[in-house]
Amino acid sequence: MSKVLVLNSGSSSIKYLLYDGDRVLDKGTVERIGEPGGGPSDHAGAIRQILGGLDLTGLTVVGHRVVHGGRRFTAPTLVDDAVLTAISDLVPLAPLHNPANLAGIEVAREALPGVPQVAVFDTAFHHTLPDSAATYAIDRDVAQRYGIRRYGFHGTSHAYVSRRTAELLGRPYDEVNTITLHLGNGASACAVSGGRSVATSMGMSPLEGLVMGTRSGDLDPTIVFHLRREGGMGVDEIDDLLNHRSGLLGLSGVNDVRELLARRAAGDEAAALAFDVYCRRITCYVGAYYALLGRVDAVTFTAGVGEHAAPVRTAALAGLGRLGITVDPERNAGSGDRLISPDGAEVAVCVIGTDEEREIARAARAVVTGGS
Amino acid sequence: MSKVLVLNSGSSSIKYLLYDGDRVLDKGTVERIGEPGGGPSDHAGAIRQILGGLDLTGLTVVGHRVVHGGRRFTAPTLVDDAVLTAISDLVPLAPLHNPANLAGIEVAREALPGVPQVAVFDTAFHHTLPDSAATYAIDRDVAQRYGIRRYGFHGTSHAYVSRRTAELLGRPYDEVNTITLHLGNGASACAVSGGRSVATSMGMSPLEGLVMGTRSGDLDPTIVFHLRREGGMGVDEIDDLLNHRSGLLGLSGVNDVRELLARRAAGDEAAALAFDVYCRRITCYVGAYYALLGRVDAVTFTAGVGEHAAPVRTAALAGLGRLGITVDPERNAGSGDRLISPDGAEVAVCVIGTDEEREIARAARAVVTGGS
Ligand SMILES: Nc1ncnc2c1ncn2[C@@H]1O[C@H](COP(=O)(O)OP(=O)(O)O)[C@@H](O)[C@H]1O
Ligand SMILES: Nc1ncnc2c1ncn2[C@@H]1O[C@H](COP(=O)(O)OP(=O)(O)O)[C@@H](O)[C@H]1O
Repeated sequence: MSKVLVLNSGSSSIKYLLYDGDRVLDKGTVERIGEPGGGPSDHAGAIRQILGGLDLTGLTVVGHRVVHGGRRFTAPTLVDDAVLTAISDLVPLAPLHNPANLAGIEVAREALPGVPQVAVFDTAFHHTLPDSAATYAIDRDVAQRYGIRRYGFHGTSHAYVSRRTAELLGRPYDEVNTITLHLGNGASACAVSGGRSVATSMGMSPLEGLVMGTRSGDLDPTIVFHLRREGGMGVDEIDDLLNHRSGLLGLSGVNDVRELLARRAAGDEAAALAFDVYCRRITCYVGAYYALLGRVDAVTFTAGVGEHAAPVRTAALAGLGRLGITVDPERNAGSGDRLISPDGAEVAVCVIGTDEEREIARAARAVVTGGS
Repeated sequence: MSKVLVLNSGSSSIKYLLYDGDRVLDKGTVERIGEPGGGPSDHAGAIRQILGGLDLTGLTVVGHRVVHGGRRFTAPTLVDDAVLTAISDLVPLAPLHNPANLAGIEVAREALPGVPQVAVFDTAFHHTLPDSAATYAIDRDVAQRYGIRRYGFHGTSHAYVSRRTAELLGRPYDEVNTITLHLGNGASACAVSGGRSVATSMGMSPLEGLVMGTRSGDLDPTIVFHLRREGGMGVDEIDDLLNHRSGLLGLSGVNDVRELLARRAAGDEAAALAFDVYCRRITCYVGAYYALLGRVDAVTFTAGVGEHAAPVRTAALAGLGRLGITVDPERNAGSGDRLISPDGAEVAVCVIGTDEEREIARAARAVVTGGS
């Protein structure tokens, strides 16, 4: 028996899964941390509540999701005091995420002395980005001083689904070029060449790139200046607007793609436009990454929208026949991990369920057993 | 005899060309307007200086370049008081450009009473962008209130070179799909389908998109928030940084591509990285627009860098063989308007000299003669 506990600590919720090998023994989410009349008053209380309800006999390691690993963390890392300090040093780069991740690790460490804690970083998979992909075209001294570069996120998911794509194709991971599309509440694209991330759409923060549930993705930076000058908005207010009131929500009033599709089907014009903007952005990234990779073996959809929204997959890849990319309507309407391109297509289009927690468990176990 | 005068009024300089039909009778630039010990003290003085030195007998029209035409101006427009008011209303959208353009028109109008003045807008060619391309994924009410949408720029150039591309291929303009790459001090890409702009890289302002001489092009909007919070910089300072001290200049210390290529050849690592970042961004846009267009007949380079920097063309299109895009090294090393792809290539790669002033002259003449 070798149990692994995975903790994904957000600012107001903590998700947990307990594995024995590949088997999920228990899972759940504690929500509304710190909300008046809501759940536990802080992360310590929440984690005590979680730990109190689990049978932790034989627990060998706790794996923690950490959003930002900066340039320092390029792989899952056993936590010690120096690692905690380093994660805390990265808070300015991820003010919304790293503090909660850190709190989770600190509390779990105290509550479970003697159990190794492993930090698994969303950014780590992207440490292979070439300099030309990671560098923004701004003053290099300013960039250096403030840590401004493309870090990329969702790395655990892109790593997992690109490896699973190679398995599905029955080909060695290090020979396959895949474009992975993680479309959840957050969304990002990644070009994976032979198991290495060579391009990704999220950048210094998870705001850049694809259109998301509530985030704008790419936009002209002048918009920020304009909202400041003409709208009289403060920088924090603009930050909040672009992160929490933009994307599908800002365009259509809803951020859940199920609801968006229903409204679009009912003739709602705002929903139809939001859908078009969302899918067009995906099309652009597929084309861009196709050009960067030169040759593409697979395009893989994952996460809530990617796995379940067939119309998004159809629209995002429409008109790409010249690139060898087509979708078979019947396969697209199916379910489960599968190919949705026709047999013999040049580019395999795949749907693969992501499982970031399982991947974190695997990575955490590998750190303590020295495996990989 | 039917002379046309073209005025391109910038904040500190005015460029002028006098045409008789297609023939250039005179041209020049008045610089350092308003600088102590420099040229004339204001735009009125500069334009009086220009007009005083020209033989304007038979002048039929003056064509003015205007950067921002907003949603209102979708074609070259005869100037009257209402048009001047409308251009002035657009100043918040183009605070760096429209005031100077406006000053030029006002002075010329006074100095040449009875001569029609025509405003030719950089944005107009892009009024055909589909909503899904023009809409940013932000709150729609905020976007509506502050005029936030993709307008696109360099329209006169993209229109001119895409039409010339069709001529070079000997095909009807309305049947050809072209990706035009205007690479000057400013730089933008455009997807032109049957003579209509369907995608372009500059957005609400000329800051978005490709890497430019001194502008960043695309970046994570969080960078603005981060520079405000961690760097303590003001919004105007960040605006100035991204517009005037970024791009090739920020990365390498030089914004002239001739000097950049020389330094790179001499082993300068910063110049090599700037070159790679610059070319990679072009590759991404070519791929993105290829995906949007579905079928591409031509990729056309224009403007200072596009026309003269063979290594940029080679690097930007390297590895695109699968898309039918290849460059013939000998043709690439040549000069003049030409094909640089091999005979029989699926996609024609072209180099075409742009001539925005000639296009402005043509458009201005068409407005007063009622032709097109
Ligand atoms: N059957 C479905 N059809 C369309 N969209 C779905 C469906 N199921 C889930 N989604 C979308 O997936 C989103 C959540 O994705 P998920 O990967 O679970 O999010 P997260 O990024 O928070 O992990 C929801 O907002 C919803 O829009
Ligand atoms: N022979 C050349 N080789 C490489 N780059 C060149 C060459 N000639 C001009 N350029 C580049 O073209 C740029 C200016 O382009 P241009 O189209 O004239 O600018 P603008 O956008 O101001 O109209 C210069 O900064 C220079 O980098």
